Amino acid sequence: MLEEIEAAYRRIQKYINKTPVMTSRTLNTIMVTEIFLKCENFQRGGAFKARGAFNSLIQLELEQKVNGVIAHSSGNHAQAVALAAKELGIKATIVMPKNAPPVKKAATQGYGGEIVECGNNPTDRSEKTEELIKKHGYTLIHPYNYKPTIYGAGTAAYELVKEINRVDLVLAPIGGGGLISGTSIATKGLCPEAKIIGVEPQNADDAYRSFKDGKIYPSINPSTIADGLRTSLGDITFEIIQRNVSEIITVSEEQILDAMKFLWERMKLVVEPSGAVPLAGLFVMSKERSQYLKGKRIGLILSGGNIDLTTFFSFIEKQIDSSIVD
Amino acid sequence: MLEEIEAAYRRIQKYINKTPVMTSRTLNTIMVTEIFLKCENFQRGGAFKARGAFNSLIQLELEQKVNGVIAHSSGNHAQAVALAAKELGIKATIVMPKNAPPVKKAATQGYGGEIVECGNNPTDRSEKTEELIKKHGYTLIHPYNYKPTIYGAGTAAYELVKEINRVDLVLAPIGGGGLISGTSIATKGLCPEAKIIGVEPQNADDAYRSFKDGKIYPSINPSTIADGLRTSLGDITFEIIQRNVSEIITVSEEQILDAMKFLWERMKLVVEPSGAVPLAGLFVMSKERSQYLKGKRIGLILSGGNIDLTTFFSFIEKQIDSSIVD
Repeated sequence: MLEEIEAAYRRIQKYINKTPVMTSRTLNTIMVTEIFLKCENFQRGGAFKARGAFNSLIQLELEQKVNGVIAHSSGNHAQAVALAAKELGIKATIVMPKNAPPVKKAATQGYGGEIVECGNNPTDRSEKTEELIKKHGYTLIHPYNYKPTIYGAGTAAYELVKEINRVDLVLAPIGGGGLISGTSIATKGLCPEAKIIGVEPQNADDAYRSFKDGKIYPSINPSTIADGLRTSLGDITFEIIQRNVSEIITVSEEQILDAMKFLWERMKLVVEPSGAVPLAGLFVMSKERSQYLKGKRIGLILSGGNIDLTTFFSFIEKQIDSSIVD
Repeated sequence: MLEEIEAAYRRIQKYINKTPVMTSRTLNTIMVTEIFLKCENFQRGGAFKARGAFNSLIQLELEQKVNGVIAHSSGNHAQAVALAAKELGIKATIVMPKNAPPVKKAATQGYGGEIVECGNNPTDRSEKTEELIKKHGYTLIHPYNYKPTIYGAGTAAYELVKEINRVDLVLAPIGGGGLISGTSIATKGLCPEAKIIGVEPQNADDAYRSFKDGKIYPSINPSTIADGLRTSLGDITFEIIQRNVSEIITVSEEQILDAMKFLWERMKLVVEPSGAVPLAGLFVMSKERSQYLKGKRIGLILSGGNIDLTTFFSFIEKQIDSSIVD
C-alpha cells in the first residue's frame, strides 16, 4: 500500500510543510542510539492532521465540495479540516465538544471553520454530526477511520524514512489509530524489516487492551492530559494495527510530562502532550530494554504542538529544573 | 574577509550543529515578505556562541591548551567555552556574575566548566579575570571583541545565506557586537548588496547611540530582559559595525515579549529574549516601513534559546492568548 502513501504525498506536497527531522546529541549519548524526531509540531495547523485533511478534501467529488464538509474532533483534526477547506474553497462545519481546549477552538475559527458545539461524550459528537449531515448534505471527514486520512497521515513517516534512509524502529502515539496506521504502512513499505511500536497513555489504554485481546474496546471518558489520544480505535485502523504493529506500550501522565519537559528545555521544542507520548515511551523502553535499543536507528513522530502557554506551564510547574540543549 | 569565515566554518563544522532555517506562512503573509529564521536556539549549548568558542579554542597553541582557558560571561558564552573546552580536552574556568541566570550556571557546570563568581558590574568581571590569568597563565577567550569569536559567530549567517542563496536584509541582535560583526562579514561576503540591521533593546541602547555618534558609549547596568545584550561594544566589533551595518534600531521590552510569544505559539520555538530581539525589530519595521520591506528576502538570526520555564512564563504571563502555527 506504499503506492497509496506516495499518491497522497504527490497530492498534498504543495500544501503542507516538509517538517524538519531533529536530533539531539544528548539523547543519542544517553540512549546509545540514533534518534530522529519528526517534528509535526512544525506542520501547518500545528499538527500532522493537515496531511490527512488535505488528502481527503482534494479527492472529493465536485458536488461534495459544493455542499461542504463536516468533521468532529476535540481539536487538531478540526483545525486541519478548517485550514484545508479554506485553502481549497470548501465550506467546513466542525462539531466540537464543549470541553475542547480553547487554543484549538480559536484556531479552528481563525481558519474560517464554523463550530457547532456538542456534549463531551464521544456519542454526542457523532449524533450531532449525523443530524447536520442529514440536514445539509455535508460530507464527513473522519478524523482517523478513513483511508484518505490514514494515507495522508502516513506521509509524515514517509518523509522521515526517505530523509534518514534506514530505520529500525518507529514509535508513534495511538489515539484513534490513524497516525500509527499510516506510519506503519509508509515505514514498512520503505523498510520492510522495521518495527512499529504504538505508545498510549496508561489512563487511556483502550488500544493496548484491544491489541492484546484482539477486539476493539471503546475508550470511555479517559482522564489523560494527552487530549489527542482519548478516542477509540476504528475497524479500519485496528485491522492495520493488528497487521503492522509489533507492540503497544503505555506511559504514565508523569512520564508524558517528563518528555514534554525534556523537549522544551533540552531541544527548545514546544510539543503538546500527545506529541510527547512517543518520547515518553522511548524513555520507558530505555529503562527496561536498553540492550535492545542499543545501536538502533529510531524514528519518533512528534505529532503536534498545539498547547497554550498557561496549560503548558500548569502541567509542568512542579517538575522544573535547569538544563540546556546539546 | 569571507575567507576567514569560510576557514572558521571548515574548522568547526564537525563540532557544531547545522541549525535549521525555519519559515512561517503566517509571518510571510502578514509581512508580504519572505522571512528566514536561522534557529541558533537549536545550536549545541543552546546558542550561536558554540561557533565562536570552538573556532577560538581549536586555534590555540599547545601551551595555551595545556594551561587552560578562561572566559567571563553572563551566560551563553560561558557554557559554549565550557562545552568546547570539554570536547577538546582543555580546562576551562568561567567568571560569572552572581546574578547570572541559574539555567546558564547549571549548564556551564554540567559541561565541566569551573565557575568563579564575581560582582554584578562589568568591571568586576574583568578584574577577577585578570587576577586569575596572572595567577594561572590562562588564555582569555573574549566573548565578542576577539576575531576568532567573531569569525566563528559569522558561520551562522554563512550557513543561512548559503542555504537560501539570496538575501536582501539580515537582522541580528547587538550586545557586544560579535554576532552582528560576523553576520555582516559573512552576509556581505556572499551577497554584497545585502543590508545588515542591528536590533537592540531600548533599555540597553548603547550600540544605537555609539553608532549614531561615532564613539563607543559604555553600557552601564542596563535593565532589560535580554540578558545577552547588556554588554558594551568593543573596539574591534565597533569598527566592523561602522563599516558594514546600515542602521541600528531599538525595541521595547514589550515588543521583545510579543516576539517571544509569537515564536512560542505560532512557530513552536523556545527562544530566549535576546534571540527574539531581531523579530521584534522586524515587527517594528513592518509598522513604520512596510513598503520598504515588501517582497524582500529577510534573514533573522535567532541567537539562542536558553531560558528556564519559570522565567519564560513569568515574563509573558500577562500577554497570553491563543493561536497556532501555519
